[in-house]
Amino acid sequence: MRIRRRRCRSVTVGSVRIGGRAPISVQSMTNTPTADAGATIAQIRSLVEAGAQIVRVSVPDEASAAALHRIVAESGVPIVADIHFRHDLAVAAVEAGVAKLRINPGNIQRPADVRVLAEKAASRGIPIRVGINSGSIPGHIREKLGTGADALWAAAERHLLLLAETGFTDTVISLKASDPMTTVEANLRAARECDRPLHLGVTEAGPSLEGAVRSSVAIGLLLARGIGDTIRVSLSGPPEDEPFVAWEILSSLGLGRIHPRLVSCPTCARTRIDVAGIAGELSGILRRIRGDFTVAVMGCEVNGPGEAREADFAVIGSPAGMILFEGGRRLPGTVQPGEIRSRLEHELSRFAEKQGGPAR
Amino acid sequence: MRIRRRRCRSVTVGSVRIGGRAPISVQSMTNTPTADAGATIAQIRSLVEAGAQIVRVSVPDEASAAALHRIVAESGVPIVADIHFRHDLAVAAVEAGVAKLRINPGNIQRPADVRVLAEKAASRGIPIRVGINSGSIPGHIREKLGTGADALWAAAERHLLLLAETGFTDTVISLKASDPMTTVEANLRAARECDRPLHLGVTEAGPSLEGAVRSSVAIGLLLARGIGDTIRVSLSGPPEDEPFVAWEILSSLGLGRIHPRLVSCPTCARTRIDVAGIAGELSGILRRIRGDFTVAVMGCEVNGPGEAREADFAVIGSPAGMILFEGGRRLPGTVQPGEIRSRLEHELSRFAEKQGGPAR
Repeated sequence: MRIRRRRCRSVTVGSVRIGGRAPISVQSMTNTPTADAGATIAQIRSLVEAGAQIVRVSVPDEASAAALHRIVAESGVPIVADIHFRHDLAVAAVEAGVAKLRINPGNIQRPADVRVLAEKAASRGIPIRVGINSGSIPGHIREKLGTGADALWAAAERHLLLLAETGFTDTVISLKASDPMTTVEANLRAARECDRPLHLGVTEAGPSLEGAVRSSVAIGLLLARGIGDTIRVSLSGPPEDEPFVAWEILSSLGLGRIHPRLVSCPTCARTRIDVAGIAGELSGILRRIRGDFTVAVMGCEVNGPGEAREADFAVIGSPAGMILFEGGRRLPGTVQPGEIRSRLEHELSRFAEKQGGPAR
Repeated sequence: MRIRRRRCRSVTVGSVRIGGRAPISVQSMTNTPTADAGATIAQIRSLVEAGAQIVRVSVPDEASAAALHRIVAESGVPIVADIHFRHDLAVAAVEAGVAKLRINPGNIQRPADVRVLAEKAASRGIPIRVGINSGSIPGHIREKLGTGADALWAAAERHLLLLAETGFTDTVISLKASDPMTTVEANLRAARECDRPLHLGVTEAGPSLEGAVRSSVAIGLLLARGIGDTIRVSLSGPPEDEPFVAWEILSSLGLGRIHPRLVSCPTCARTRIDVAGIAGELSGILRRIRGDFTVAVMGCEVNGPGEAREADFAVIGSPAGMILFEGGRRLPGTVQPGEIRSRLEHELSRFAEKQGGPAR
């Protein structure tokens, strides 16, 4: 299945380009109090290690805006200020050096306010994301159109017009519903109706597992149609799961990869090793490694040898115990349960270095 | 986005029909030793509670085949026997009363063996799934075609022919690769080339989070095109996660629902309550409840009131503490952290009963 990307304009967010022919980028967001610059910078670094290329922070008050100076200086990744209600905080965030603004048309609606923040953003050459959520659609649109795909697009269109009237067109759009299919429909419409880059995400997607499914279904359907230029997976869970899931979506579609790929069998009555336990250990190890290779964990001899042949590195259960394969060849000996973690960490770091993917 | 189901024949698996106009069904598989009938029945019941409508058990030896009698009698759900290497175990499984066979053409290839098991299945009127995995494609096909989509389809086609030559056409096909896009391509081809019901899944999909993403992307893309009649999500994790994720995929696409829907915000610097903790508690509570309604957990006032208006039941963080909404109306008082679990269990069981969804 060949994916042809939709053509659209591009914007520049610090060192990252969104849209045009740029690779699809992965975003995430902190949940620390932004005013606590130290905690926020630490979480940003952790998100970046997990694969985030752009990080958004909420700016609900003056103390948060003041902390942005240090956050921008020390994060080493483009920072987006998330602004609700108060356009003056958007102005302060731009002055603090953020690389993009995200505003919510549901709560910053006065044309004069929009003009002030647009002029400020234009003065520094930074883009604005018009971010519509189904939970905060402007009242006058909700009354006419409800909260479905048409309402999401109508809210974006009105705000793009407000911005365009001030001469500002350096915009990204996001249309997020908590219902995956509403999200898909809204973005299909946006893709037809405009040439702006699209930021994809399902809002209020739920805990990690539920949220991963809904995000994968909606973002997956859109990306498979070539729609979407940057993605954010929203989860009520460990923040680092967000970029991890985002990259899993991209790699599932063959659109990008940073971590090695882990395949592991679901286990059955034939299983001879603790596949879930070993796969869990491996998942933790591989999240900290960069590289384009495949590691397989298989419980038995049915699909084990086949997957071992295909995988760059494989852990297979056998009557003799746990055995390892590299490049389709069996490594000598068996691995005892007590040495699994240290042995796998050692072998995979070695393998990643050999493959040229820098171990981090 | 309207989904039009592909037309295909149907087969009957005990009380469940697969294909034709039947709703898409959810399958799962045990990982207990099948010979331990008690443990296997207990796990089957747990899978059924999580939403499995058909459960497969591996039958690697005589002791497992012998245990099938009791498993079939006591499980209360159609049982599928998973057979590799030995056609005689397929015969024994049919005699034990299983509702379907799954055979792997990679390791049962002799036409005489296929004839014996097909005649046995036909004598009891039970269907056979021809289940191809990328890790166990027959050698002669792998040598010519590799392990991609064409090889998966070629292996299925050859086996369908073997079965058809014995007069057996009551078949379901599955074509599973560990790569999601290969899985999609193989099933697109099968959907074009034949009119058999299709069982969808990504094989060796990894631990729960990785596996949920890959399964959601591949199964989601196919179901959105109307392809797929029954699904199984394979995870190296808690078995009950499999039907849970499968139902999340179906409900993401608007194709079915058994559990209430949980929406929760990803939290940010504005968050006033422990959203992830509360959402985690709620996820556990809602997995045990049947019903078609929506519960929202929102950390603050930005999207909170909007989601509370849309949701049937909502938990919102506010400056005063945690407040509850039902049908868009605020319930009196606030909830203290210590009483969250008991209060939510009470309110949601009450709400589920009121909605007519039987609390289980």
